[in-house]
Amino acid sequence: MIVIPEHLVERLFTAEAAFEAVEAVFAAMSRREAENFPVVRDMIGHADAVYGIKSGFDRAGLALGLKAGGYWPGNAEKGLTNHQSAVLLFDADTGRPSAIVSGNHLTAMRTAAASAVSIRYLARPDARVLGMVGAGHQAAFQMRAALRQRHFEKVVGWNLHPEMLPGLAAVAQAEGVAFEAVELDRLGAEADVIITITSSFAPILLAEHVKPGTHIAAMGTDTRGKQELDPGLVAAASVFTDEVAQSISIGECQHAVAAGLVLAEDIGEIGAVVTGAAAGRRSLEEITLFDGTGVALQDLAGAAKVVELARDAGPLVSVDL
Amino acid sequence: MIVIPEHLVERLFTAEAAFEAVEAVFAAMSRREAENFPVVRDMIGHADAVYGIKSGFDRAGLALGLKAGGYWPGNAEKGLTNHQSAVLLFDADTGRPSAIVSGNHLTAMRTAAASAVSIRYLARPDARVLGMVGAGHQAAFQMRAALRQRHFEKVVGWNLHPEMLPGLAAVAQAEGVAFEAVELDRLGAEADVIITITSSFAPILLAEHVKPGTHIAAMGTDTRGKQELDPGLVAAASVFTDEVAQSISIGECQHAVAAGLVLAEDIGEIGAVVTGAAAGRRSLEEITLFDGTGVALQDLAGAAKVVELARDAGPLVSVDL
Repeated sequence: MIVIPEHLVERLFTAEAAFEAVEAVFAAMSRREAENFPVVRDMIGHADAVYGIKSGFDRAGLALGLKAGGYWPGNAEKGLTNHQSAVLLFDADTGRPSAIVSGNHLTAMRTAAASAVSIRYLARPDARVLGMVGAGHQAAFQMRAALRQRHFEKVVGWNLHPEMLPGLAAVAQAEGVAFEAVELDRLGAEADVIITITSSFAPILLAEHVKPGTHIAAMGTDTRGKQELDPGLVAAASVFTDEVAQSISIGECQHAVAAGLVLAEDIGEIGAVVTGAAAGRRSLEEITLFDGTGVALQDLAGAAKVVELARDAGPLVSVDL
Repeated sequence: MIVIPEHLVERLFTAEAAFEAVEAVFAAMSRREAENFPVVRDMIGHADAVYGIKSGFDRAGLALGLKAGGYWPGNAEKGLTNHQSAVLLFDADTGRPSAIVSGNHLTAMRTAAASAVSIRYLARPDARVLGMVGAGHQAAFQMRAALRQRHFEKVVGWNLHPEMLPGLAAVAQAEGVAFEAVELDRLGAEADVIITITSSFAPILLAEHVKPGTHIAAMGTDTRGKQELDPGLVAAASVFTDEVAQSISIGECQHAVAAGLVLAEDIGEIGAVVTGAAAGRRSLEEITLFDGTGVALQDLAGAAKVVELARDAGPLVSVDL
């Protein structure tokens, strides 16, 4: 069994590698060659932690396994990341564990890659301004991955706690792009692509904020009750997601569907756009929305890609099990 | 992260160690200090394999994690075990992976330990003859663990394919106990304790086979549709199980409950007998039944015990993740 520690994932799992892995597995999901199994998720009643397991199998890429871990809010004061996870891959031909891959950086990169895939396939080709709603740890990953998809000249950012925006500005600067902290109405008026990446439980971005032709990647809502967008904005958009079942139950679409504004059958799969089975953006004026809920197959595809890169990179840590 | 390979589990995880771990976690379950999470189980559509994940958390023993793996029917011809699994343990205080433990021997031993716990707490003290229904790989583990619980003088065995019985006879001989291959009516007439460990989908052991005072450990039924006992026999017994929810859905009791012969509320928890919260056997004449369905917490408790034993035994294989 191969062991890939966090520092090796950080070195090998580039934005390009993550993009390739996630794009391919979204396509496999759409061709029904890859399936996510039911999610296990529970408050464990210890250390205020939430523990969960996401699993699945990609018959095309032969990635079988699971990501397990969760959120331990007391970790930060111990000098550890609050989000902790690991991916365990199995040999699909024998059922034997084939690799364990640290999942922290992997999760951040595969989540960023999902919105990047949506931008490549759904944003207007002439998009020049990127709007960032949210400035936490994950926002920087999202922004870096997004900046590779169009010739963005500027980032406009908003955060509930504005004092966090200089951190995001520094990341933009390092990427060679101008950054401006703005209010939401200006953000919506300027941005051609908007990424929402908050942990909000009430709408932040409203229909009146957003101009025609915008692509929105709503990446923060992954639990029942969370919400970043006005349901009216969701209803006004052409909506795509990674997995429809998650989109309507734990994703951003849960609210618009519950309000009767959007039907599950109106939500497209981003993978179908990748394969060409479904149309993406149909006009320069329409608003497109990607509801990124996060699926196990992103983790498995990402981990399998890291293993492949690690094999190419040199000697591996391998243990007998 | 500590790595415990199969050969080390085989060396360290004795019947005594397995018994202690399983007895303790059954008690924790009964005190509601330990919980099994929902089971994931799926035909993956590749290599005819069934893949599954069992997970849970024992707040008393602080064992958090999962067992993943499954059944790969083509493994035998590759020289591998068809059943393959691994246990991944997490540090309950930080969510970081703490150990990965090979799960093959572990599963056999923890399953055998469950029936052994039931025998210790439910069989008549004067039991002298052990009946074995089934003679596959798991039967030997069951028999060895059972023989430690009473002063058994003889084993009587039956198997659908009688040509497999000499293998079980050899195990009995190695344990210093007489073995006789018999028909089911003689098995029931002689045995004070009966273990059923088959993969049957129809009743094998009937009410008329079994004499008063017998303890039955039904260990083979772990899936919807499987069945080893006549529902009338189940209805005639005082029934105990590891987890009631599993007993009535995938365990032996599924059939008697579906037939209206047994109510879920009449099924006792073996853990409550261990803690003393519930009575076990109430007379020398009653038939007691343990419906062993197999729960994640047995795996986690077993793996945690192996890690503890490995720490005591000497240098460990440890990898950075």
